[in-house]
Order: sequence, then structure tokens, then C-alpha cells
Amino acid sequence: MLTDLLRTTRARTLALAAPLSNEDAQLQSMPDASPAKWHLAHTSWFFEALVLQPHLPGYCVFDERWPRLFNSYYESLGPRHARPQRGLLSRPSLDEVKGYRRHVDAALADLLPFASDAARALIELGCHHEQQHQELLLTDILHAFSCNPLLPAYQPQRPEPARAPAQAWLKHPGGVIDIGHTGAGFAFDNEGPRHRVLLEAFEISNRLVTCGEYADFVAAGGYREPLLWLSDGWATVQAQGWQRPLYWQQDGSVFGLHGVQALDPDAPVTQLSFYEACAFAEWAGARLPTEFEWEAASILPGFEQAADPAWGAWQWTRSDYAPYPGFKPAAGAVGEYNGKFMVGQQVLRGGSLATPAGHARPSYRNFFPPAARWQFSGLRLAR
Amino acid sequence: MLTDLLRTTRARTLALAAPLSNEDAQLQSMPDASPAKWHLAHTSWFFEALVLQPHLPGYCVFDERWPRLFNSYYESLGPRHARPQRGLLSRPSLDEVKGYRRHVDAALADLLPFASDAARALIELGCHHEQQHQELLLTDILHAFSCNPLLPAYQPQRPEPARAPAQAWLKHPGGVIDIGHTGAGFAFDNEGPRHRVLLEAFEISNRLVTCGEYADFVAAGGYREPLLWLSDGWATVQAQGWQRPLYWQQDGSVFGLHGVQALDPDAPVTQLSFYEACAFAEWAGARLPTEFEWEAASILPGFEQAADPAWGAWQWTRSDYAPYPGFKPAAGAVGEYNGKFMVGQQVLRGGSLATPAGHARPSYRNFFPPAARWQFSGLRLAR
Amino acid sequence: MLTDLLRTTRARTLALAAPLSNEDAQLQSMPDASPAKWHLAHTSWFFEALVLQPHLPGYCVFDERWPRLFNSYYESLGPRHARPQRGLLSRPSLDEVKGYRRHVDAALADLLPFASDAARALIELGCHHEQQHQELLLTDILHAFSCNPLLPAYQPQRPEPARAPAQAWLKHPGGVIDIGHTGAGFAFDNEGPRHRVLLEAFEISNRLVTCGEYADFVAAGGYREPLLWLSDGWATVQAQGWQRPLYWQQDGSVFGLHGVQALDPDAPVTQLSFYEACAFAEWAGARLPTEFEWEAASILPGFEQAADPAWGAWQWTRSDYAPYPGFKPAAGAVGEYNGKFMVGQQVLRGGSLATPAGHARPSYRNFFPPAARWQFSGLRLAR
Amino acid sequence: MLTDLLRTTRARTLALAAPLSNEDAQLQSMPDASPAKWHLAHTSWFFEALVLQPHLPGYCVFDERWPRLFNSYYESLGPRHARPQRGLLSRPSLDEVKGYRRHVDAALADLLPFASDAARALIELGCHHEQQHQELLLTDILHAFSCNPLLPAYQPQRPEPARAPAQAWLKHPGGVIDIGHTGAGFAFDNEGPRHRVLLEAFEISNRLVTCGEYADFVAAGGYREPLLWLSDGWATVQAQGWQRPLYWQQDGSVFGLHGVQALDPDAPVTQLSFYEACAFAEWAGARLPTEFEWEAASILPGFEQAADPAWGAWQWTRSDYAPYPGFKPAAGAVGEYNGKFMVGQQVLRGGSLATPAGHARPSYRNFFPPAARWQFSGLRLAR
Repeated sequence: MLTDLLRTTRARTLALAAPLSNEDAQLQSMPDASPAKWHLAHTSWFFEALVLQPHLPGYCVFDERWPRLFNSYYESLGPRHARPQRGLLSRPSLDEVKGYRRHVDAALADLLPFASDAARALIELGCHHEQQHQELLLTDILHAFSCNPLLPAYQPQRPEPARAPAQAWLKHPGGVIDIGHTGAGFAFDNEGPRHRVLLEAFEISNRLVTCGEYADFVAAGGYREPLLWLSDGWATVQAQGWQRPLYWQQDGSVFGLHGVQALDPDAPVTQLSFYEACAFAEWAGARLPTEFEWEAASILPGFEQAADPAWGAWQWTRSDYAPYPGFKPAAGAVGEYNGKFMVGQQVLRGGSLATPAGHARPSYRNFFPPAARWQFSGLRLAR
Repeated sequence: MLTDLLRTTRARTLALAAPLSNEDAQLQSMPDASPAKWHLAHTSWFFEALVLQPHLPGYCVFDERWPRLFNSYYESLGPRHARPQRGLLSRPSLDEVKGYRRHVDAALADLLPFASDAARALIELGCHHEQQHQELLLTDILHAFSCNPLLPAYQPQRPEPARAPAQAWLKHPGGVIDIGHTGAGFAFDNEGPRHRVLLEAFEISNRLVTCGEYADFVAAGGYREPLLWLSDGWATVQAQGWQRPLYWQQDGSVFGLHGVQALDPDAPVTQLSFYEACAFAEWAGARLPTEFEWEAASILPGFEQAADPAWGAWQWTRSDYAPYPGFKPAAGAVGEYNGKFMVGQQVLRGGSLATPAGHARPSYRNFFPPAARWQFSGLRLAR
Repeated sequence: MLTDLLRTTRARTLALAAPLSNEDAQLQSMPDASPAKWHLAHTSWFFEALVLQPHLPGYCVFDERWPRLFNSYYESLGPRHARPQRGLLSRPSLDEVKGYRRHVDAALADLLPFASDAARALIELGCHHEQQHQELLLTDILHAFSCNPLLPAYQPQRPEPARAPAQAWLKHPGGVIDIGHTGAGFAFDNEGPRHRVLLEAFEISNRLVTCGEYADFVAAGGYREPLLWLSDGWATVQAQGWQRPLYWQQDGSVFGLHGVQALDPDAPVTQLSFYEACAFAEWAGARLPTEFEWEAASILPGFEQAADPAWGAWQWTRSDYAPYPGFKPAAGAVGEYNGKFMVGQQVLRGGSLATPAGHARPSYRNFFPPAARWQFSGLRLAR
Repeated sequence: MLTDLLRTTRARTLALAAPLSNEDAQLQSMPDASPAKWHLAHTSWFFEALVLQPHLPGYCVFDERWPRLFNSYYESLGPRHARPQRGLLSRPSLDEVKGYRRHVDAALADLLPFASDAARALIELGCHHEQQHQELLLTDILHAFSCNPLLPAYQPQRPEPARAPAQAWLKHPGGVIDIGHTGAGFAFDNEGPRHRVLLEAFEISNRLVTCGEYADFVAAGGYREPLLWLSDGWATVQAQGWQRPLYWQQDGSVFGLHGVQALDPDAPVTQLSFYEACAFAEWAGARLPTEFEWEAASILPGFEQAADPAWGAWQWTRSDYAPYPGFKPAAGAVGEYNGKFMVGQQVLRGGSLATPAGHARPSYRNFFPPAARWQFSGLRLAR
């Protein structure tokens, strides 16, 4: 089963990169984003550095100069090429990177039959890590394409229009709730330890806010009314000249993976920052749920699936990304995976159309800074 | 009693500014800080705009051009002079600003005997608001003086050396705890609504981390070891070249309100950012308490006073500054006081040597961005 | 006579600072500008460091910590306080700086009767240096006042309206012209060596461009037409949002040393950048003269005085600030006075209402970067 | 002959791009540089917009969306994609751009037999324009490769070592010299009008400064001695941390088009800024020639060829890039070619190993800002 997960995951990454030309795969449109080629290489480096080197005797690093290029942020694993300059790596070529992937795949195949539990756990982590980069690959290339006046489509065929159910408030009685991963199946360290949280009674929407609803907010002058915004949010609106969601065009159309399309009023609004999500909620007379409310409510009947294959979006919560009580990062490089990012970011829950099937869970904690708006991130109201 | 509070508060602000020359009172050393003269004027504007104009019939604004200069961040009260340019206001002069204060004081004296409950509540708010600015006046002038190679002393006489008790761990059993202001006496809106929080058992230090303990961290290479730091913290250490707390000099002495002094190993370490507090805690094998743990523990026997008259320091907590369940900002300008800052900041609890007596409470929530290090901010360990 | 120059110059600096409050004297509104108090101190430091220390046996530095504060840019004279932080020096106070001036004056009085020729030459240089700072003191305080929404007046009384003569073209036949200082009286090193330049025949305007003429350029859309501008100029117009000269208000009035006044159509336009001067000339079908043309033409009959006591302005030329053939900076600190600035700046000729009487000469070379617009800088057309 | 020039030039651009992968051809490593693919497209757009559209009846623009992408800086020819974002244009692909080139070539072939003199002049300009971009293509890709830790070689084979003749001073008697293009053959508008300049007698070196000589300057601490530098130069040295020429490695080797090679002491030093050239000259007790001295001296016997096929370098002069007396930009878009850049830049004379054969002339004026150091720019001493 781990073999299957590994094979499927590795193949899917290549498939996601397939529509991209060599030039596309090298685009880096901002420091926060990475080239598709870099994602292809980095996910392989992760297996090489954390699995193969420590656990496969006799493993030879594919190229000794590459770990420096493809280490993302692991201080304990040596120096790194500056993040904003990833787009300047025309060499190694996309073909060479694919060769790197094959080299790593072959070594993993050698290792798997004899892998210790520790090694198997790291391989599983590497697969889920790669799934995270699959989503980033899509959001990053979408941002890069949005910077090209030609607005190319990643995948030209248009999806079916979305169908949003009528909005309804689901009631949750509150109480002492168990939060965090139950222990069955894989989870990231940041989803634990499982612990109890006391919630007051609350209501939460059965579904995400739609583009139609958000368009009303825009039309009502939401981006011109400072009192709706958090202070940092309003400062950002003014400094960046925000007037609508990131990929909404001036003519009312919306840019996305399928190119420029008419705004679909039933589709969830995406590519929102936390600031925009909060301002909308304020305007709507509601608020964002905390991540604990979200997790508690996710089992309520009528709580719409987070990650619709075609239309889902992550949902900003009113919780900052902080360690759960008793959280301890693991020893070694793996300990740098999550814990060191636990400040200055907000938690998102759910999953999106770009999230690989099976990747997210109700306890899953995604996180981004409050100004980030290039993800498939929207909101679900609470009150 | 409100009369007393008002008189005492207004007088104390002037007393704090007394050691400053006209030139000192105009210093603005960074966008986050304000000139002492501006603090003197802004706190008067606050009474003028929120109390006198709405509640004293016939009140005449002191100068119609000044609200623009001394409104801090109230979007609902009109346009504002750009914050980073407050230090460029040589006019009005310090004397004119003192005249403004007298004008406002006289009008408040006229109003007080006949003030409605709503007006009295706003006057009380204005006093606590002014007390907050008293602390900022001190931390801001200290920062400004630190930028002068002559390192002038705000108050030359040296205080008594600090005496730190032996460090001990206080045990708290956890459980469902009531958090937030009880309702007796004044509190800011962000301290409520009072609500229940479920805590796991924890231990907390009886006292703050001392300069001596922090010096060990510095000497052990704490500022050179990335694995001790949050990712944003380490990026800041490198970008800003941090090597020790803000006012520690290379020769081992420490700059403060009393000028340059020998490091006092028993004094609480102050002028720390949240990042530095976290890195120290990591190095010490401990962590920061959440704001809820802090509040719950504050009544434990042996929990040392937060605000020692001579040596206290605010204590960074592991909680971000977020609304309590059910929090709603008030309608009108007062609603901009706290709520709109509830993102991207960490809560500090306690109080400091610069906090006016009687200002802080166990439920009091101070807040600053994680990189801010010009406050009297230190830490108390938990585990 | 040197005694007179010294006494007059030193007294005039104080007189220029007299209308300023202690707070005014500390204003620094941008890195390129300096506080009036700093000008008062720096000009004294110049005498101390270049004249008194080397030439007056037994001279005691007024305060050993001050040279670091008041050295402007002399690498050979030790480390310096960062230029953009001059406005943060509330200490020493204005009174202490005046004491510094008296200390230096007294020592110069001691030295003068016995001064060597070398020392006398340096004292003369110090006087002309101080005269340059007199002009900067005025342009810097004007800029600082322009950042205050109250727009205070340095000198409230309004001057007589200007009278501009009718515009006329003066013809110059060209030929081999002697350029540079003749050697009689004081000159800065950058005015020599005197040398020959070959000029083609040209015409030059008898007077400066007026505010009325420039207002026509503004009204004709000059700030919106890229083809009139140098490439760097247009980039600056867009990046800075320039729409009119620096101190022209949106309502058609003009801010200046006398506060806000109606635009005087006959007054020379001032506070122009080189970019604006070039764009105007292009629009007017003319060009700027070179500094050599300007100097050659300055003796033509009808060539209006450069520095009208009330209304004069420096005139941008089409010449960059470069060394004359055979120019060699002097040995020692004095060599840093001019030569090291000879790149990236344009020469201005003439003088302005803020130039001390007797300071400028036909061979005088003022210089500023092409984007600088806070000086009394205008233009005279050529063709 | 124009046909030959056109064919050769167009073919050579493609040949220069031949060693580059699709990814290489898209690299933009700084705002000042452009991707090779962009150079290929822009040079074609130049012919399309300035020659084919106005002069070939019935010409169809290849793609109506492309002029916006490939217009460089011609305000009169419509809006432009932001320069720093040229590297984000993964589409159109390199193949599509080559198709664009063929489309333009075919149309030019149609036009040529019937082209008016005006059209022929523009075609000739387009060829020389494209030759300029050939040099930029090389310097830009070299800069991009220098940002890749793998330091790829554009052209791996190592050139023959350079042979520098012994340094000697050539004497020029000065006098009235004719400067500027004589009128025979093509020249850019900035090379005229031809006019007379009066020069004093001077001496100029027979050859360029070598890497060996420059290495002595580095070893002597040239980058640590502020008194050798222009003020802006020293500020740049400190702000950028310059310690040696741009492509000199810490281990003494040098990166270039042929990859990393041992420093060749006889080769001209290149990739110098004007600031570095001036500091070296100061250290060597000499100076840079003016562009007029350079042009006058270029016919002296022994004046070494500017553009050695393998080793030449442009030579910074002490002249800013300013219009010659009587210079008038042409009407229309062509007028934006040179004139609007005439401020803030220094003239370079000669030519480099990257300059196409036959492109440069003694009257040729190359120009770059004084801090630019990614060109094949060195220096020749004068005194």
C-alpha cells in the first residue's frame, strides 16, 4: 500500500507538470512561489536527503551540487540557493530533473522491500509532502500565468458550472470537544497532540461563500470602506491597490486554471486573503469560525464537503497557526517541517480543487500569512 | 473618583514629559514610535474628539487644523497626518500643545459635574488610553535616545539593583477556567466577554527570565543557532544583524532610562521580541505560556508580581491577539480602539516598570507584532 | 578683511536660524536635507577640524564626542553619524551648539592675528563653506516646513511682486572662450583650472523662465506627455506622481519662505528638478545652455543678474559636473570637498535669493542630482 | 549590400541563441537585463513596427497581442509589458518567437526590392539595432548564468590566452579636433552633428588595463580605501559589498562566457563599473580620458584596436552622455532611440569581444549608468 501511494504520488506530480513547456516549468513570479521544475526536483531531494541517504546503504547522491539548489528551508541539511532566485536555475534542465526523479524512484524501489519502520514512515511523509507540492505547483503556475498579458490556460477545457446549495446555518451546541488527529492513518505532526477544547455554542454555514455573494460585496464598495477591514488589511488594500479578488478581471471575468472564464456565481470565491475573508464576513454580519469550531462542525449533517473535486477551496479560520498543547517537533531535520512556521500565519481548513484526493482530513491544518491570496482560499461563515 | 483619576492621569503625563527638552519631545526614531509631544497632543485630542465634541454642548475645537495632526488611526474621525511623519511637526510647539491640554482639561472640568453615564465611561476610557500612551512615551523616547551616539539618560539616577528570587516551577492542575474581565472596575473591550477555557495541567515559572540567564543564552551562541528560532525569527536575526537584546551594548553594559549601566544579572531581561523570547525558551527546554495559562496561573501563590515598580516587564505569551468568543467591537469610533488590530500580533501579559500604577490587571491584554523589541517586554517560562 | 568676512559670515548663520524654534531647528525631512542645528554645528566643526586642530597650538576640541556627529562626509577625518539620522540628535541642544560656535569663534579670534597663509586660506574656505550651508539651511527648513500640514512661514512678510523684463534672445558668436576662475579673489577648486573651450554660436535668454510661463506648460499637460521628458525624468514623474513644481499647491498658490502666497507670474519658477527644466525647454522648442555657454554669455549686455536679492534662482545647465582639464583635488581632507562628487550630477549656474551676497561668481559651479527639486533651482533657455 | 547586412545580422542573432536551451533563453536575472528570447522577439518587433507597418502595404502584424510584449521603451508606439517582468513570458514559446522572426524576414524580403530610401534607412537602422542586442544577449545571459551556482558555460571551449603589449603612453598635442561621425556609412544619431572640440595636450595609454594590473589594485586594498573612490562609488561599494570585479571568484578564478577559467593576467579587465574604473585610475596616478580625447587619440599609431575579437572591452570615459551641439532627435518613434537617455550615464568608447564585427566605429558612443558592471567594460588610462 505504501508502494502504491509512492507510485501514484510520484506519477501524479509528473502528470501535473505535463501540460507545461520547459519555459513554463521555470517560471517564478514572486519569491513566495516556486517553479514547477523546482517542485519536481525538491520533492525528489526530500526523499534523497531524508530517506535514501540515511536509510539506503551505498546510495549515491545524484549530483553533489544539487542539494544546495533543491533544499527548501532545512537549516540542518546545509546551505541553500536563495529562494527568490529559484527561477534563475535554467540548469539543470527539466529533462535532467526528470532523470533525477527516475534515479530517486529506482533507489526507493530498491529500499522499499527492506525498509525499516522508520524509513517507511519517512517515505510516507515524503509522499504527503509531495502532495502538498502538487497543490503548490498548480497555484504557483497559475500565479505565473496571471503575470503574462496573454493569460494562458493551464488546462483549456472548461469545467461544469458549479451548483451551490441554498445557504443554511448549522447549529453546534459547543461543549468539550476532542481536537486533532485520532491516530488512524497518516497525519502531520502539527495535527497533534489530540486534546480537548471547550467551545461555546455556535452556528456555521453549510457551504462556502460563493462568487456571486462576494461580487455583491465588491459592488457594495467593500474595498473602499475602511471600517470593514482589519487595520493591517486596510493598509494592504491601499498599498497594493486591491479592488477585487486576485484573479478577477476588470471586465467581470475570472482567470483560473482554465484560462479566462465568465464569473460563475455559484462557485466558491477563491484566491482570497485572510484580510478579504474577514472584511466580507464583517460586511455580512458574521465572522470566520475558529479552526476548532470548523473541526467540530465538520461532522455535522449538511456540512458540505470541503474539497469538491472541481470547485473546493480552503477556508480561512480565525485561528492563528500555533502549537497544540504538548506539541514537540521531532528531532532532526523532520522537526523543521512544521513547528518553526508557527507564528504570523492563519490556519485554513478543508481542502481545495487543487488538493490531491485523499490528502486532506478534518484535522488537517493548512496555513498561510494573512495577506497571501494566490491559493485556492475562500471562506465559510460562522456566527 | 473619576475626577481624581482624570486629574492624576493628566498631570502624570506632563510629569513624564518634564525631563525632556523641546527637541527631545519632538523625536521620532521610527514609524512605530511617536514623539512625546505627539503623545501629549493625541491624548488630548482623544478627549476632544470622543468626549467633548459629542458631549459638551458649545465646545469649541481648540484648533480646527489639529485633529488631522493628532488623530492616530480612527478612520471614522477623518483624515490623518501620515504616521511616519509625526516627527516633522515642529509646529505646533510644545508650549502650544500644553495650551491644548489646558483647554481640554478646562472643558472636561466643565463637563464632569453634568456628564452622562456614557460621557463618564468615555472619560474613564480616555484616562486609561492616556495611561497606555504614558508607557509608550517612555519606550518611544528611550528608542529615540538609543539612536543618539551620546546615549542620553532620561532619568540619570541609578535604581537599586534588582533582587530575583530563586527560580521555581509553580504547578497548575488545568481544568475549565474562567478567562477575561470579571466586570468589576474598568477594562478594555478586548478583555471580554468573560468565557471558559479548558486548560491541560502545566507548570509556570514563579518569576521572569533574568538578564543573567539571558546572557548565558547569548554567550552559548543563541543568536547563531538557527534551529532554536522560529523561521520568521531567524530571517529577522539575519536581516537585522541581531546579536543581543536591543539595548545591550557590545561591551556588556545596557542602555536604559537611566542611561548606560552595568548589566544587572538579577533584573528581568527586557526589550525582547517574541522571536527572541521563543528562542530562549527553546534553548532552555521550556516554552512560553499561553495567555490563558498566564491568567490562570496569576493567582497562584508565589507567582511574582508582574509589574515591579522598578523592574517589571511585560511577558510574551504563545497566544496571538484574537477576539474572545462573542467579542463585538462597540459601534462608532470607540469600536476602532482594539478590534481592528486583532491579527498578526502576540499577546503580552503582566505589566512593566513603565506601566502606570493601577493600569494593568490579570485580564489585561497587551499586544505587539512578534518582531517588536522596543518595549519593556521579557518572558516567563512554562512547561 | 578676512576678519570681517569671518565675523559677518558667522553672524549671518545665527541670524538665519533666529526665526526658528528649537524644534524647527531639529527638523530633518529627508536624508538629503539636514537640520538647521546641524548646519550650525557642522560649519563650526569644519573650522575646528580643518583650521583649529592643525593650526592653533594647544587648541582643545570642544567635546570629543561631537566630531563624529558633525563631520559630514570627510572619510579622512574619522567615522560619522549616519546622515539620515541627523534629525535624531536632540542632544546636544541648540544652546549647546551655540556654545560650540562661541568656542570656535573665540579660538579663531586667537588664531587670526598669527595665522599662516595656509591657515588663512583655510579660514577663507571655511567662510565660503559656511555660506553654502546658509543656503542649504534655508532650502532644508523650507522642505521641512512643506511637510507640515500647517505650512508655517519662515518669514511671514510678503516680498514685493517680481517684475520680469520681456523675454529676449541674446546672441553669442561662439569661438574659443576662457572658462573658469580668473584667479582674483576666492574660488572653489572645482572652478579651475582655467582653460579654453570652443563654442559654436548660440542664443540665450536674457532672463529666467517665469512662473507664468511654467504654469502654461503645466496647463498644457506637460506632466502627462512622455515624449517631452528624458527617460529617467518620465520614470520619476510616474513613480513620484509629479504634477507640478514641488511647492505649487493644488489650488494654484505657492508655498515658500513667506508661507503660502498667490503664484506670482513674473517670478522665476524655482524648486524645479533638471528633469522638469529639460521637459519645459523641450516643450518651449528650446534647450538648456551648457555651463560653458552660460559662463560665456554672462557678460553679455542684457543678461539679467543671476541672483536677484528677492527672486533669483540657480539655473540648471546641460553640463554634468565633471572635472575641468587638469583638475587635481588638493591633498588631505580639503581634497574631499568637491572632487569626489563629480559624477551623476548636473551643474547649476547663477545664484538664488537664498545665496548670500557676494558668494556666487560667474565661474561658480553649483551641482545637484537631476531629480533634486528642493533648491531654488529654475532655468534659462538657450537655442 | 543592405540585403547582405540584413541576412547576416538576422542569422547571427539566431546563431548566438543556438547554444541556449529554451529555459536559458527565458532567463531574466535583473530588471536591467532581458531574456535571450525577448531579444529575439524585440529585434523583430522593431522591424515590424518601424519598417513593415509603415512601409509595406498590406502587412499583417504577426500577432496583435505581441507588440505590447516586445516594445521596449517607445512611448509613441503604445503600452508595454513591465520591463522587470520580461522573464515571466513563458509564452510565446521560443519556437513561436522563431516563427515571428521568419514572418518578419519574409516580409522584409518582400519589401526590400521596392523599398523607398526612407524604408531602406530604417532597415539599416534595424540591423544596427539588432547588432546592439546581440551584444546585450551575450552580456545578459552571462549575468543570468552567473546567478546559477552551477556556473554554466555559454561556450565551453577556452580561448587562447591574451597577449598584452607593454604599456606605453601615446602623446597627443591637443588642439581643435573634429568630433563625431564623418558621414560615410551608417552612424547613430547620437554620433553627430560633427563638431569641433578644443583639447589640451594629453597622453593616453596604448592599451587597456589588464587583469593582472587590476589584480594588483585589488590586492593593494583598493576596495577598502574610500579616498580612491568617487562618493557615489564608495557608497555603492559598501552597500553592495563589492570586493572585486563582478565575475571574479573568491578563489582567484574568473567566470565568463567560457565558464570558470584561471585569471589571465594579460587579458583586459572587464565587467567593471565606471566607479571601479575611476578608482583604479586614481590608484594608478592617472585618469580616464574624455570621450573626445579617446576619439582624437584613436588614430594615433600604436593605439591598440578597441575590439580584439577575443578579448576587447569597452572603455569608460570621463564624459557623460550628453547631446552634441545642435543635436536634435528625429521626429517620430525613431527619435526615442537615443536622445531621451542623455542624462545620468557615462560614455564608453571602443568595442568589445561581444560586439559584432563592423558594428563599432571611432565615433561610436556606447553608454551605461556609472554603477553598471555586467558589460564587457574596462578602461584605458590617460594623463
